[in-house]
Amino acid sequence: MGRQVSGTRSSEVTVNAQQRLGALEQDPEVRVVVFNSAVPDFFLAHYDIAAAPSRSATSTAPTGLSAWLDVLARIAEGPFVSIAKIRGRARGAGSEFALACDMRFASREHAVLSQPEIGLGLVAGGAPTHRLPFLTGRGRALEIMLTGQDYDADLAERYGYVNRSVPDAALDGFVADMAVRIASFDKAALTEVKAFVGEVSLPAHDLQACTSRAFWASAARPAGSGSTPHRNRAWAGPATSRCTWGSTCPVSTTRPGRDGHRPPTTSTPRHRFHRTAAHQHPKELP
Amino acid sequence: MGRQVSGTRSSEVTVNAQQRLGALEQDPEVRVVVFNSAVPDFFLAHYDIAAAPSRSATSTAPTGLSAWLDVLARIAEGPFVSIAKIRGRARGAGSEFALACDMRFASREHAVLSQPEIGLGLVAGGAPTHRLPFLTGRGRALEIMLTGQDYDADLAERYGYVNRSVPDAALDGFVADMAVRIASFDKAALTEVKAFVGEVSLPAHDLQACTSRAFWASAARPAGSGSTPHRNRAWAGPATSRCTWGSTCPVSTTRPGRDGHRPPTTSTPRHRFHRTAAHQHPKELP
Amino acid sequence: MGRQVSGTRSSEVTVNAQQRLGALEQDPEVRVVVFNSAVPDFFLAHYDIAAAPSRSATSTAPTGLSAWLDVLARIAEGPFVSIAKIRGRARGAGSEFALACDMRFASREHAVLSQPEIGLGLVAGGAPTHRLPFLTGRGRALEIMLTGQDYDADLAERYGYVNRSVPDAALDGFVADMAVRIASFDKAALTEVKAFVGEVSLPAHDLQACTSRAFWASAARPAGSGSTPHRNRAWAGPATSRCTWGSTCPVSTTRPGRDGHRPPTTSTPRHRFHRTAAHQHPKELP
Repeated sequence: MGRQVSGTRSSEVTVNAQQRLGALEQDPEVRVVVFNSAVPDFFLAHYDIAAAPSRSATSTAPTGLSAWLDVLARIAEGPFVSIAKIRGRARGAGSEFALACDMRFASREHAVLSQPEIGLGLVAGGAPTHRLPFLTGRGRALEIMLTGQDYDADLAERYGYVNRSVPDAALDGFVADMAVRIASFDKAALTEVKAFVGEVSLPAHDLQACTSRAFWASAARPAGSGSTPHRNRAWAGPATSRCTWGSTCPVSTTRPGRDGHRPPTTSTPRHRFHRTAAHQHPKELP
Repeated sequence: MGRQVSGTRSSEVTVNAQQRLGALEQDPEVRVVVFNSAVPDFFLAHYDIAAAPSRSATSTAPTGLSAWLDVLARIAEGPFVSIAKIRGRARGAGSEFALACDMRFASREHAVLSQPEIGLGLVAGGAPTHRLPFLTGRGRALEIMLTGQDYDADLAERYGYVNRSVPDAALDGFVADMAVRIASFDKAALTEVKAFVGEVSLPAHDLQACTSRAFWASAARPAGSGSTPHRNRAWAGPATSRCTWGSTCPVSTTRPGRDGHRPPTTSTPRHRFHRTAAHQHPKELP
Repeated sequence: MGRQVSGTRSSEVTVNAQQRLGALEQDPEVRVVVFNSAVPDFFLAHYDIAAAPSRSATSTAPTGLSAWLDVLARIAEGPFVSIAKIRGRARGAGSEFALACDMRFASREHAVLSQPEIGLGLVAGGAPTHRLPFLTGRGRALEIMLTGQDYDADLAERYGYVNRSVPDAALDGFVADMAVRIASFDKAALTEVKAFVGEVSLPAHDLQACTSRAFWASAARPAGSGSTPHRNRAWAGPATSRCTWGSTCPVSTTRPGRDGHRPPTTSTPRHRFHRTAAHQHPKELP
């Protein structure tokens, strides 16, 4: 029953995600959805500014939020348990997606999380500013958002950015066992428990909407007065010298040829939806 | 000045607790109350559904909440410092009780905490869904509530479920030193500090009341469509094959003879109230 | 561009801080301010009750809060990133100051944090009761506030009291690298991100104002019925037998000659403001 959604551009991921979420929300058998990455090195690496649905797309989203925030809110509030299995890089939108999930488990050896937008003069638009404090506390949320630096799995666990850092060899089994266990429970009870926890730990939609507006406003203005290698270093991160935004990276648009900024050479990351219903074992897709 | 409340059924514990709390609330000398367990293996293991006061009992509770939530709210908001010393199992209502205390210290070797209600298709009714996020953050609160699995003391500390995991041999001294220290301080200042912290970290009473209603509603409905060994495994937990709910366990009522579900063979857990006034050393009761 | 503010009495620190904050708030180049201590053993050790501006000084503060709360709120909400580098003792007002900063990094070997006010029957007046739960969670915030005990850097990190404990030899470089990195980013984006995080993690001003009123009320009343060595032990802390409040210590005023309570023999702690603008390396002042 595992299903896969992939897109070579984030707008496709967003649209596919919205369509897929509608199906997941209405399927009475779906109790758990595990999100992982089809490309080993990436969880979900970027949000495609150029191809993103315009802000007018907002009107059609069930939550009334813009397309990306709608996806995140429905992951966070939907009638199923959402688990992010993070094996590669979860930066920017990838981190935002993971933060919207109910739980996050990260490969000790391979996971990298960050919100690097600040390095480009951008305000992250998927409300990580409003989700991180409920996970890491205020001080560590500010550190993550204001430095834009990378966090490996062990530090992410110490900070509460992920639930737990798990040795890579054990990660699949760990998450599968948890998904199967949860999928054996009563869906009504799972949904009520999730809603109750959300009453004291989810940011209001109107606060989230502000982050999206701030993101577009920051993308439209010149990226600040400072321009140093740190800006790009923050973006590319210590684990790679490649920008993970590809052809849609705002830096490449506004500052072509800048040092340390090259389009990625690997294939575009794809994103996989993986649902677990009662009595089913999660299937790993090839 | 140590006093003991014990009951062979949870309804007695609840009624005794309500009576006892009235005395504690009005005693100008009581600064600290340490809660521990009289039976080595248990902190407080269960809430007695069959014998529990009916929902109509609500009207007489000072907080206006139902009996069990009234006990928990008065522990959390009362004019004394409440410390849970957790040496054995604190599952279900035992965990809820510990979560209502101001602080929690757990035996590294022997403590086990969990909210296993979800494994029976139940929604926990003592508002752990609303208390855990203020201790562990949203992601770990969801994990604890949605998996129903056991947490040992060290993992509970990493998650913030308890303040600290303490080696068993040092636990009594550690808690006693802290209780004596706090009991030497000014009661008015202690009460004001506790109230100030509560202003930003206690769930509203009306949110708590919803969890009690959801608990009774979930106990009344068939326990969901799925019925696998995981359901019982979640309940009994890895540390024991015995159900800790005894004769009032909803599983034994609705599914007699189910594998892995047997009534407990040890005596019913008892609960001990232990108060520490100024200048007094905590006394361990036999 | 490093600048220093020092005062031999806290009232001077407060007034200087308010003046300095006005300049920092209006300087379009200031992105990061690092606060550390000019005296090795202290971060900021005390608040000077005797010399403190009267409550009527409130009317002139931009936030409408009393002088000390005004300083703290402007650190927490100002258009610059504030980092506390904690190498020595940050007790009482020093801890309150650190808690108001966006991030806190502590010397593993030398940092000590605490809110020891409770040991004197005082309610801390700089709203640590309302800030700590957003960093450490409710249970650990209550422990810190109700025990008044000292926390070294490693335990402070485990509790979330500081972002991270850093080996002393690496602390200066760690904080400098972070400050330079952040200072290379766009100021508008930094400010918006800080504001967004604050929307879900800063206590309301009116709640903060209550703590100041409770502090003055607690300072005016007799310090409770209990009077034991623990009271002073809590204040002086395990790392020193000297009271860190000096001549203005309420204990020395109300209980002269009490055992274990002696005026400090070192010079009065001074406090240093250290700002980092874009492209500037933080300078360590002699």
